[in-house]
Amino acid sequence: MSFSAAFYEAFEEEELQLRKFLPSGHEYFFTWKTIQEEHKAGEPPAAPIISMRTQSRIPDSWARKLEGIITRSTGYDHIADYLSRNSAKIASAYLPDYAARAVAEHAMMLWTCLLRKLPVQSKAFGSFHRDGLTGREVKGRSIAVVGVGRIGSQIVDIAAGLKMDFVGVDVAENPGLKRIYGLRYLPLPEAIARSEIIACALPLTRLTRGMLGAHALSAAPKGAIFVNVGRGEVSPARDILELVEKGILSGAGLDVYNCEKELAAVLRDGLDPAGLEGESAAEVRALLEMKKNPSFILTPHNAFNTEESVLRKSQRTAENLGSFLRTGTFITPIIS
Amino acid sequence: MSFSAAFYEAFEEEELQLRKFLPSGHEYFFTWKTIQEEHKAGEPPAAPIISMRTQSRIPDSWARKLEGIITRSTGYDHIADYLSRNSAKIASAYLPDYAARAVAEHAMMLWTCLLRKLPVQSKAFGSFHRDGLTGREVKGRSIAVVGVGRIGSQIVDIAAGLKMDFVGVDVAENPGLKRIYGLRYLPLPEAIARSEIIACALPLTRLTRGMLGAHALSAAPKGAIFVNVGRGEVSPARDILELVEKGILSGAGLDVYNCEKELAAVLRDGLDPAGLEGESAAEVRALLEMKKNPSFILTPHNAFNTEESVLRKSQRTAENLGSFLRTGTFITPIIS
Repeated sequence: MSFSAAFYEAFEEEELQLRKFLPSGHEYFFTWKTIQEEHKAGEPPAAPIISMRTQSRIPDSWARKLEGIITRSTGYDHIADYLSRNSAKIASAYLPDYAARAVAEHAMMLWTCLLRKLPVQSKAFGSFHRDGLTGREVKGRSIAVVGVGRIGSQIVDIAAGLKMDFVGVDVAENPGLKRIYGLRYLPLPEAIARSEIIACALPLTRLTRGMLGAHALSAAPKGAIFVNVGRGEVSPARDILELVEKGILSGAGLDVYNCEKELAAVLRDGLDPAGLEGESAAEVRALLEMKKNPSFILTPHNAFNTEESVLRKSQRTAENLGSFLRTGTFITPIIS
Repeated sequence: MSFSAAFYEAFEEEELQLRKFLPSGHEYFFTWKTIQEEHKAGEPPAAPIISMRTQSRIPDSWARKLEGIITRSTGYDHIADYLSRNSAKIASAYLPDYAARAVAEHAMMLWTCLLRKLPVQSKAFGSFHRDGLTGREVKGRSIAVVGVGRIGSQIVDIAAGLKMDFVGVDVAENPGLKRIYGLRYLPLPEAIARSEIIACALPLTRLTRGMLGAHALSAAPKGAIFVNVGRGEVSPARDILELVEKGILSGAGLDVYNCEKELAAVLRDGLDPAGLEGESAAEVRALLEMKKNPSFILTPHNAFNTEESVLRKSQRTAENLGSFLRTGTFITPIIS
């Protein structure tokens, strides 16, 4: 192989940034495709060190060929799963905390646009009518921040700045946030029952999978808004669609998706959704339904994607790779 | 006439709110149409007291028939013009300060969506691609608030809450804002030259007409964003379009329009734009061009329109009408 490292799922702008910081004297392979889109079954990796985001499936046959893996994401359960499934001891790295503010601001954008019905307003410009366009103000509005980690803390900072009425939900309370923002923690059901906005910034763990499903969210006040910038697996799309159709939620803003790989395969690669089965079939069907409805704002897992975070991500990816090429160890390794 | 007061330009939701607060024992006429859409030339008003927003043209022949006018808007130059043109002494009222926060939050929504390219992101969901979707973060971003009155002060409050780098532009400095927010005032050209976001919250006066045209805004940093929630006459659409086409501005969010009456006539009533002449022809042409371009977010003069402000507006309209019916004077009269 002539490449030192192969970068999958690297779109044009990210490639340009990465190339600025990568160690010189090496050749690098770049593609915007996932591994499964780039390689036919049985093909070897394009380099002994590979880097991807969260939508690639690494072939099990590569477990004995790879020297290093860098996931350009904060979540790394997909890498941990791969290593454990293959009993592989491949050195691996992830990128903690490069995009928390970008993601939190994306959440703020989604709830503001939903409160103000922006998709409907934009459409109504075409007839210059204002019927049905009355929105709700952000200031003073109740919000539950579910998951007050790195991203959730930034959401609390924004909610405080906009003079909202915020509470947090988390397994452990953060004394710093209580001191700085006067953050009050509530159990999930109480937080949902009092909040017109429910913002999910949870990571995916055994505990959080399905946690914000139809049952939990149905306790929200009528007309509440749900925003998910955490992980899609926490909140199935078909549950959200059902709650909006029932009029319990008035809308939802989603940047992350349950069965995101299958969704991407359908939307990006033209896979026929009729070929899907089980949960992924139901999820993709619900999302295609949402896509036609202005009560939903859907973005393509793009909340992290700002100039500021792309810069931080590329710098930290390059630093990890440089360290590994020099010393054989990563700066921010995955401990599994 | 059997009606005590006639409400023009009152869309469904506003009518419902108004009816809650209006004095009982009277009959009221309601229509969502403007006066010129509702009445043929020569027809009398539907009641001796009329109320409208900013798009109605009151016939000169009504000057001797009307007893009272209430404009359900904060701006009242259209009423002052009418009274002065007809040398009429009709008691008139306006609604100060009912929607400042709603309008300021609308501005925040527009600049956030433009920084994050939301129209492009929403479209890209359909192919689940992320090329060209890198946005900019709000925190730390430079913003010039042009016009620091009731709305502009609320924009400053939001910019401070989101930890932006803000300056103000106004004819007079407000010591309260300097004390509370550390607001720094700059002359217009300097403020524009240092700001990636330019937010217009100016009223329409002889001084402000055309003030944020191509010349003034062309000093902005490359890729700057322009947001107008003040008055369209301050910033002609064809100038904004030109600056975006030249790549000086990366986008614009508009809620108010120069030649708004003609624009509404084209979009709402199907008037053929080819029949327009002069400035309004050029303005409407530019806006129809913007409508096709995701670098623009256009809303139908709807920034004021929240549940909170509609409630305040209806209450204050009803209070003014009640006072006039009892005492012959308004609570918030137009002094002209």
